[in-house]
Amino acid sequence: MNTTQPPVADAGPRPRLSARAAGLTSSAIRDLLAHARRPGMISFAGGLPAAAMFDLEGLHAATAAVLETGVDVFQYGATEGQDDLRQALARLMGERGAPVEASRVLVTSGSQQALDLVVRSLLDPGATVVVERPSYLAALQVLHLAQARVVAVDVDADGLCVERLDAACAGLAPRLAYVVPTFANPSGACLSLARRLALLEWAVRHDVWLIEDDPYGELRFGGEPLPSLLALAPRVPGAAARVIHVCSLSKVVAPALRIGWTVLPEALVGPVTRVKQSLDLQTSALTQEIAARYLGSGRLPTRVAAIARAYGARKRALADALHRHFGDRIGFNDPDGGMFLWARFEDGTDAAALLPVALDHGVMYVPGEPFFADAPDRSSLRLAFSTVGEARCAEGVARLARAARTPGACASL
Amino acid sequence: MNTTQPPVADAGPRPRLSARAAGLTSSAIRDLLAHARRPGMISFAGGLPAAAMFDLEGLHAATAAVLETGVDVFQYGATEGQDDLRQALARLMGERGAPVEASRVLVTSGSQQALDLVVRSLLDPGATVVVERPSYLAALQVLHLAQARVVAVDVDADGLCVERLDAACAGLAPRLAYVVPTFANPSGACLSLARRLALLEWAVRHDVWLIEDDPYGELRFGGEPLPSLLALAPRVPGAAARVIHVCSLSKVVAPALRIGWTVLPEALVGPVTRVKQSLDLQTSALTQEIAARYLGSGRLPTRVAAIARAYGARKRALADALHRHFGDRIGFNDPDGGMFLWARFEDGTDAAALLPVALDHGVMYVPGEPFFADAPDRSSLRLAFSTVGEARCAEGVARLARAARTPGACASL
Repeated sequence: MNTTQPPVADAGPRPRLSARAAGLTSSAIRDLLAHARRPGMISFAGGLPAAAMFDLEGLHAATAAVLETGVDVFQYGATEGQDDLRQALARLMGERGAPVEASRVLVTSGSQQALDLVVRSLLDPGATVVVERPSYLAALQVLHLAQARVVAVDVDADGLCVERLDAACAGLAPRLAYVVPTFANPSGACLSLARRLALLEWAVRHDVWLIEDDPYGELRFGGEPLPSLLALAPRVPGAAARVIHVCSLSKVVAPALRIGWTVLPEALVGPVTRVKQSLDLQTSALTQEIAARYLGSGRLPTRVAAIARAYGARKRALADALHRHFGDRIGFNDPDGGMFLWARFEDGTDAAALLPVALDHGVMYVPGEPFFADAPDRSSLRLAFSTVGEARCAEGVARLARAARTPGACASL
Repeated sequence: MNTTQPPVADAGPRPRLSARAAGLTSSAIRDLLAHARRPGMISFAGGLPAAAMFDLEGLHAATAAVLETGVDVFQYGATEGQDDLRQALARLMGERGAPVEASRVLVTSGSQQALDLVVRSLLDPGATVVVERPSYLAALQVLHLAQARVVAVDVDADGLCVERLDAACAGLAPRLAYVVPTFANPSGACLSLARRLALLEWAVRHDVWLIEDDPYGELRFGGEPLPSLLALAPRVPGAAARVIHVCSLSKVVAPALRIGWTVLPEALVGPVTRVKQSLDLQTSALTQEIAARYLGSGRLPTRVAAIARAYGARKRALADALHRHFGDRIGFNDPDGGMFLWARFEDGTDAAALLPVALDHGVMYVPGEPFFADAPDRSSLRLAFSTVGEARCAEGVARLARAARTPGACASL
């Protein structure tokens, strides 16, 4: 071998990353999506809405109408968002029981950006943040990037165990709590009314910001609607100024518009908008105007109802098949909405270890581990039913049961 | 008066911001845009492309073609960007003298996001970053958010004074240099070939990342084309692994698509993509596909040539009028491309103090101050000619001259 080494410079710098970026691992879900394309695969893995239910006709009409308005829609616009979209979103919030001024609505590039934006605006490195256990993994990534200290508090069938917050946060002076109160990702749980009120009171008592992430709230297919934290806040003195509501059109209209928004307490609008300006100047005026037209068309409520109906049927098919094939060997929540069923192998099967076997049997899911900020429950798994028709739900579970019967695949913990 | 006070909690928390967000002031340019809408105002202030020159016909055709492809374009896509757009952008880079693999192209939500993304991926708080003096103000905001230590090095007619870098950075171990080598915002300067090579050598010598921000490079209306740092890097051993090229369709197609991209050294693709995932999951697949179709239509080169021609005529009208009305009282660069003319009142007039008077006379510009990371030159101002027709350029300067003749408006420094 040639022992002459090239000059050290040729190798380029080691990519020394920032401390916040180092250690950020790719979303397990995204890495799995590669497998989802294998022919015949039944995927409960992706947190995707059902593309077949997108309102193409309505979206095409909205786009055509927007293009007729001329060049302005292709120019730079205001960082806060297009006026007509902010007004349409304020009206939407009103229809959802939380009337707000359009001036408090900041349009974001998907609700993911809203999380990053709010966290960057409010948190210094080392700040303590409360999350659900399990929690939305891309929110955990945002908090990792912000170098927050994350305290995870258990979720049960009624959502976050609010009564455990004081003990969990003792001595930590939390700055922020991040919750998905309605049909959470991944737990599917819905926070009870009593706990919603208790959470608001806790936030006031401890001077904590509350991010309410609500992408799934409209996708209810069972039970009685509950008011959002934003809608409830006026009932709890001091709470309205602490609730930061985050929402998205991705699950009810289409992800590719990348239209999210946040309803901010008055005092945060200016500062958070200035941070947004540094992040990406503004969200696409084109997709904002398409969204505004679409919302103005009045087609959304019918569409949301149809999506929720379909998801409900899929969830029932999935739940029935799990009962049928696994009986007591698998436990799970029984969500009244959203896209996710959170399950647990009661026999101690390691969901991550089972996954390669499941892939061989043509079915996939997300092992629970990445949804835990600490001490993962390795027997847990997330099953998304949104994109899987009823018959395929049943077949997918049958495959999972065959995989689990493979010698050595189960109870490997 | 009722002396009973509401509970303290009602006032809500003081919006205590993160240290990075606190002190972030709004872009002076954006605040000024409100004035731009006053009837009859001639605005040299906004850094906007000329909307009248957007290729509406081409954009409409591209959009129509994309909508025909069905639901997929409305679904979630890959964080890196849509395959066809990455390939189209890689081809575009090749046409610009810098052939790259599509796998090195990361699509971003405008080039502003690319800056934020790269900076967050690479810099820890307190890291030293070299910028031009003056520099693009939204880049300065990104660096402020990242809590970087900014070292500004003067620009002359040939761009960044590279020979001053060693002295300016003595003892500081810079991690990154951010430059707009071609028709910089705000200076309009174009870095000479000798300095480009020297800058690359300096980056290798000191193990520094180089961000080359190139939104204006194609908008050349005079002089001879110069290779980008990305194109030149293979000539300097070790440089290719250090250059991070950032570009955008905003100035040559349309800002509202929010399509930027960065060409990354191989080793950074994975880590930076993971950070992008936390920031906004992905850029709109819809606008990405529109951009890919548009690039594929082959209409861009003709359009860019037409835009550059128009901007050249506008720059000449502006420069001529400045000579005519101000003579030696104003000095300025004479850019061969881009959208900006950077001027200076040689009599010591304070550009910020003159602005309200100028507004009264129906003309606006951006005072130079926000473009300086330190010790601003208060006599400097940025005049954007991109959106102002030739006759209006002349009239705008006449108004500015009248404003400057107002007793007390000038030499107020």
